[in-house]
Amino acid sequence: MKKLEDLQAIISNAVDNLAFPDHPAELYEPINYILSLGGKRMRPALLLMACDLFGGDIDAALPPALAIEVFHNFTLMHDDIMDNAPLRRGQVTVHEKWNNNVGILSGDVMLVQGYKLMMQVEDHLLRPILDIFNTTAVGVCEGQQLDMDFEQRDNVGIDEYLEMIRLKTAVVLGGALKIGALIGGADVKDADLLSSFGEHLGIAFQLQDDILDVYGDPEKFGKQVGGDIISNKKTYLLIKALELAGNQHKTALDKWIALKQFDNAEKVAAVTAIYNSLNIRQYAEEAMQKHTDKAFEALDAINLPAAQKQYLHDFADGLLVREN
Amino acid sequence: MKKLEDLQAIISNAVDNLAFPDHPAELYEPINYILSLGGKRMRPALLLMACDLFGGDIDAALPPALAIEVFHNFTLMHDDIMDNAPLRRGQVTVHEKWNNNVGILSGDVMLVQGYKLMMQVEDHLLRPILDIFNTTAVGVCEGQQLDMDFEQRDNVGIDEYLEMIRLKTAVVLGGALKIGALIGGADVKDADLLSSFGEHLGIAFQLQDDILDVYGDPEKFGKQVGGDIISNKKTYLLIKALELAGNQHKTALDKWIALKQFDNAEKVAAVTAIYNSLNIRQYAEEAMQKHTDKAFEALDAINLPAAQKQYLHDFADGLLVREN
Repeated sequence: MKKLEDLQAIISNAVDNLAFPDHPAELYEPINYILSLGGKRMRPALLLMACDLFGGDIDAALPPALAIEVFHNFTLMHDDIMDNAPLRRGQVTVHEKWNNNVGILSGDVMLVQGYKLMMQVEDHLLRPILDIFNTTAVGVCEGQQLDMDFEQRDNVGIDEYLEMIRLKTAVVLGGALKIGALIGGADVKDADLLSSFGEHLGIAFQLQDDILDVYGDPEKFGKQVGGDIISNKKTYLLIKALELAGNQHKTALDKWIALKQFDNAEKVAAVTAIYNSLNIRQYAEEAMQKHTDKAFEALDAINLPAAQKQYLHDFADGLLVREN
Repeated sequence: MKKLEDLQAIISNAVDNLAFPDHPAELYEPINYILSLGGKRMRPALLLMACDLFGGDIDAALPPALAIEVFHNFTLMHDDIMDNAPLRRGQVTVHEKWNNNVGILSGDVMLVQGYKLMMQVEDHLLRPILDIFNTTAVGVCEGQQLDMDFEQRDNVGIDEYLEMIRLKTAVVLGGALKIGALIGGADVKDADLLSSFGEHLGIAFQLQDDILDVYGDPEKFGKQVGGDIISNKKTYLLIKALELAGNQHKTALDKWIALKQFDNAEKVAAVTAIYNSLNIRQYAEEAMQKHTDKAFEALDAINLPAAQKQYLHDFADGLLVREN
């Protein structure tokens, strides 16, 4: 198995060599710009890894891997407009550097470029792979819509939340792995299992993110601890706490959520204390473990020697113990 | 040959029966909304007409025809945001009825739905038809970008303008006809000829629109005469006039363009007088005739009996003499 770092390097090099037209400049420059901001290239690397897992030719999987990366960056370009985000990977976002219209139209043509890249597969794989790509793209749009809906609602349930993170972040991982598996020569059953591995891993990873926001080591986590609490973000933890809270805790949570002016550290400490007394961390870790288990079950069921799957196993393990 | 009205009715009925998911509502309701606003369904009807022309089964062409209509309405949804347009076909635009974010994301998923519909073709046509669809979609995005660029520029040339209207409006007509032709069983050569017919017809139609804005009969034209002049729209006429004007006319045109406050009728009369003295109408009509001729040349070259092509010939004739 090729190592993740090697695959990421292959992707980075291929992204640098993607050639879009020069003209009209305001349509294509933003594509080059957002792709140049870097990132871990995790999704396309997973696609190549899946192809490699089944003994396929990585070169044949490169255009679809680039398609996934271009598609992912299209969603970032439009999400940044919707979220009014000033920065992306520490650099100004496309709509800030140019304007909203440039961000909208450049993103549109990027989605089409994603399809063009995804079509660079053998004829017999064209329809099944585009079907997966369509399902992935629809899922990501639905997930983004649900995420925006949830910001306006105060009665979001745990199941809805899990479905939202599945759509918004996990289906792309599952889709990338499934496409890579098919190119690598996997049968549909194994490709579906690998897709399931990716989806459950993605959900577990997102739940870990929710947990680390509150309980992570700030030095290792690299983000402000309690950022989600400060911004009232509807994470697994907050939703579960609102579900389980008795009158007293509910009143306290509602107060902190409604408060416009507060001391950040004080709010984080108060809400964390409520989480602690409701055992929220344990619930979240159980949910995370459930999806981790399902991910590994799917991986184990793939019809390949265990040794061959060890690398993906280790990769998932590494992803899920970034900390604590 | 099936009549245009019959094909439009088939499309309208099929559009009404398009079933998108109910949930998330803010993602899918805007799609149903914009599609319900009507319109002439000209692009999908042309696709069916092309299929019919070559003796193909119209039912087989219906999903791709719907794909073209869904795609066209996706471009309208995003263009309306970019143009800050309050109304579309006399009804509030999607971004006004909901908000910009809804318009962006709903449009995104609409483009994906367009691909899903376009994929409902026989396997041997999947790649060639998606290649055409990709080229069409890229062209429309490039055309929209050029159109926005031109608003900011004061040195737009005639050739650039013709390329812009080709991309923004004509390639979809050509693409729709080419896809329909392939489904109908045409060979690539005839499909390309029909595509060329559609593109040149589209350019001629747009040039006629530019001419009618100034020289049309207001009762028949259905728009305010001189609307383009009032808004300084860079039409064929204005670009040609700026190109041909001597010092005196150039100064007068520049003055009217720069003027913030003016009497509409006075500006229209003054600019029209300049057009007249520069013979602009004649240049524009010659350009229009050139593309009309090229459209008919392409149609004539298609390897079918003339009688079979008469309906498309008459259709084009009808399109190009709406007036005067």
